[in-house]
Amino acid sequence: MSDKLIIFDTTLRDGEQSPGASMTRDEKLRIARQLERLRVDVIEAGFAASSNGDFEAVQTIANAIKDSTICSLSRANDRDIARAAEALKGANSGRIHTFIATSPLHMEKKLRMTPDQVFEQAKQSVRFARNLVGDIEFSPEDGYRSDMDFLCRVLEAVIAEGATTINVPDTVGYAVPELYGNFIKTLRERIPNSDKAIWSVHCHNDLGMAVANSLAGVKIGGARQVECTINGLGERAGNCSLEEVVMAVKTRRDYFGLDVGIDASHIVAASRMVSQTTGFVVQPNKAVVGANAFAHASGIHQDGVLKARDTYEIMRAEDVGWTTNKIVLGKLSGRNAFKQRLQDLGVVLESETEINNAFAKFKELADRKSEIFDEDILALVSDESVTAEKEQFGFVSMSQHSETGERPQASVVFTVAGKEMHGQSDGNGPVDASLKAIEAIVKSGAEMVLYSVNAISGSTESQGEVTVRLQNSGRVVNGVGSDPDIVVASAKAYLSALNKLQSKADRVAAQG
Amino acid sequence: MSDKLIIFDTTLRDGEQSPGASMTRDEKLRIARQLERLRVDVIEAGFAASSNGDFEAVQTIANAIKDSTICSLSRANDRDIARAAEALKGANSGRIHTFIATSPLHMEKKLRMTPDQVFEQAKQSVRFARNLVGDIEFSPEDGYRSDMDFLCRVLEAVIAEGATTINVPDTVGYAVPELYGNFIKTLRERIPNSDKAIWSVHCHNDLGMAVANSLAGVKIGGARQVECTINGLGERAGNCSLEEVVMAVKTRRDYFGLDVGIDASHIVAASRMVSQTTGFVVQPNKAVVGANAFAHASGIHQDGVLKARDTYEIMRAEDVGWTTNKIVLGKLSGRNAFKQRLQDLGVVLESETEINNAFAKFKELADRKSEIFDEDILALVSDESVTAEKEQFGFVSMSQHSETGERPQASVVFTVAGKEMHGQSDGNGPVDASLKAIEAIVKSGAEMVLYSVNAISGSTESQGEVTVRLQNSGRVVNGVGSDPDIVVASAKAYLSALNKLQSKADRVAAQG
Repeated sequence: MSDKLIIFDTTLRDGEQSPGASMTRDEKLRIARQLERLRVDVIEAGFAASSNGDFEAVQTIANAIKDSTICSLSRANDRDIARAAEALKGANSGRIHTFIATSPLHMEKKLRMTPDQVFEQAKQSVRFARNLVGDIEFSPEDGYRSDMDFLCRVLEAVIAEGATTINVPDTVGYAVPELYGNFIKTLRERIPNSDKAIWSVHCHNDLGMAVANSLAGVKIGGARQVECTINGLGERAGNCSLEEVVMAVKTRRDYFGLDVGIDASHIVAASRMVSQTTGFVVQPNKAVVGANAFAHASGIHQDGVLKARDTYEIMRAEDVGWTTNKIVLGKLSGRNAFKQRLQDLGVVLESETEINNAFAKFKELADRKSEIFDEDILALVSDESVTAEKEQFGFVSMSQHSETGERPQASVVFTVAGKEMHGQSDGNGPVDASLKAIEAIVKSGAEMVLYSVNAISGSTESQGEVTVRLQNSGRVVNGVGSDPDIVVASAKAYLSALNKLQSKADRVAAQG
Repeated sequence: MSDKLIIFDTTLRDGEQSPGASMTRDEKLRIARQLERLRVDVIEAGFAASSNGDFEAVQTIANAIKDSTICSLSRANDRDIARAAEALKGANSGRIHTFIATSPLHMEKKLRMTPDQVFEQAKQSVRFARNLVGDIEFSPEDGYRSDMDFLCRVLEAVIAEGATTINVPDTVGYAVPELYGNFIKTLRERIPNSDKAIWSVHCHNDLGMAVANSLAGVKIGGARQVECTINGLGERAGNCSLEEVVMAVKTRRDYFGLDVGIDASHIVAASRMVSQTTGFVVQPNKAVVGANAFAHASGIHQDGVLKARDTYEIMRAEDVGWTTNKIVLGKLSGRNAFKQRLQDLGVVLESETEINNAFAKFKELADRKSEIFDEDILALVSDESVTAEKEQFGFVSMSQHSETGERPQASVVFTVAGKEMHGQSDGNGPVDASLKAIEAIVKSGAEMVLYSVNAISGSTESQGEVTVRLQNSGRVVNGVGSDPDIVVASAKAYLSALNKLQSKADRVAAQG
């Protein structure tokens, strides 16, 4: 048995399935680069057959990433698998991850198939995939609620067909550590060819135990791959969180005795990137990456920490990428210093034009704000307009006014396909008025399902970063905008969301 | 062994120790009432000897709450214990929770005491406490990192002296479930009089395993009390979260075989109340209480849920207090409907004057916003000005303006001890300008350490709820304000924070 634990990140696939967390191809690529920098072993980049957009995202990432294995999810049918294999063609190392549900409830109610049909389809699919790539992962969906005898039969067959990794999902987050660990152990003991595959765990956090369940699968069950996401992103209560599982294995090496290849110093940057891209905030009391994770308040604890740091700390903030000195740049900083700082923060811009765009925004910000923090820089580059050159909608300028007893008013100037437009409206507040001013011209009919302001560096002198989530005809997109003026940041975020609705609409149309 | 699991909530003590989460006496009382409504068995209301403010909070809660046991933390010395007993005098059922560190690191570096001295002090304290109240909890701080032989000696002695509950904290969040469960089991097996006490677990979430560790202490170790907090609030990565541990025991009754007395239908209201009071957001992918905890996005899952709900759901959203129909009140709703809705939401206002104040604000809001959501009502009552009648600073009116290329301007009219003042300033954005306009008059010199906007019902037509955290001379306070105009909400929040700084200053002065 290997003493290395394989880290399989599914932020871009299972994470993206969170309502409202959908990402563009470029956003996915940027996150994939950060995952490569973290030295994630396997990146699940998407579900190639689910849409042309997802196909392109998997393909782009497969072509760009060199150090991590790139994986695509695929239902257990030939068309899905062929599509996944095609998207992965350019990968240095590619993996197809095929799945079919095996629990009685899922087979009967969702698939409407008999166990024998499911058994045959699982076998057939792995056989088909095996001719296309050598690295095949198979998941029995809702595996933890499946019948043990049936599951053994299916898994033995798919290993015989050539599946190299067997992943056992607790799809609904129902497991407890002891039972889940023993479930994996029993499978491995009962299946005669179980040593021909690497065993993997995939846990959801509905009862708050995804990390502990995953680690019980490793410790008790002998699994050597953990599927996880940055910030624990994922459907419902999310997946096992990468940062927690990695830091648990590193901090308790005495107990787990396993190596992980992750470079933890990029964890905080990855967490921020995922949070800013999806608009999903990280709560202050989130382990490892929350703003308070390394903060101490009570007098007793502060005293202890001053006397001996390890009285209350089992990890060091620096080890996961928290920096203590956060003031980094000012008005006089040059392009090279800026570029260097981007690199230190783990941000890779794709072209010199993008660096120039970001630097121009940086100088503009530095004129208005004397101290530029890391958070400001991250907000600045996550602002859509840095990377987007030929967007449909672009912010130009605005003015707004509110006064007690009167209805707030705003007028916004913005471009639509290069042409300047002028919108005007009142609203319940100045932000509402600004967005209505844009909507008065665009008439997208989109429904706003989330409006959130992310605290950037704790004071109102900072930039505000706003996420607007719009829904239209079943599509949900996030737009992000940042500016020291929260009303302007909101207008930018709204335009960015409209751009995404637009590009998604094009994509679906192309799909026919 | 009892088959009931005692739920000990420490939101008001360990939760309040989070940097920035400090609460006023009235806020604590309101949360305590919600905890009573949840049927929490024991409420740790504070640390009476730590300040006069904390003493008063414990005393107020002890006098007001009838159904839950009220507990005060106390160091292991006579003065602290006497103070705790005094604060608890009015309680129907009171408990003193005394603690002293027992790990080699904490004894040597923090306490600078020998093990024998710690042993004696622990014994003495419990003996002293035993004469004041019958219900005594003892915690060996950093117990999980203590020497087993020494810990057995201490715990046997304190049980002999009359401690009725023994709580074993994993103070630094270092445990893993198997080891922690066995640690409790070993203690209970080795200590001859262990059956004379109820055993309790207290876990921190630094490695993301607080819930699983607590439950291993219960399942493997035989503990029958779990210490936890709403939203997992607490120092660093926080404590075991009440909602997760309770729903795990309820959902997996087949495994745990234990009863919990909690009325889970009040969980979401409790979560919102704690989040709004402290300004600590709950991330969307937080188990049980996160906005996405019961949401399904991917086509496959949606399809499954439509076909059979339990394919992807192990709990029902209604069971923890999520309501599906959220539009509740409008312009024409009367005072009784409003009062009824407050009751349904679990909000108890202390007097008719408070209900009148809240209703006036409700009517004012209804004039500007056609649909009033539950979130709006909760925001409205968490707004300080509903409960505070004679505050130092009060909002009157404001106007603000921003325009691309010009510096944002704001002027704010507010009262200082009843007298109307007029502040004016520019700023980096309209919010910044408004707060500077207030600061220009007040000159508090406070530093802003957090500015956060909570999404209330997902669109900018809603009210915005703003939390401002100020720090001055080592004191940290949160102010909350709400309004459909985010700039106005910010100004209100700033004034509310100033009020708290003021009242805290008075309190410290009184303490001499």
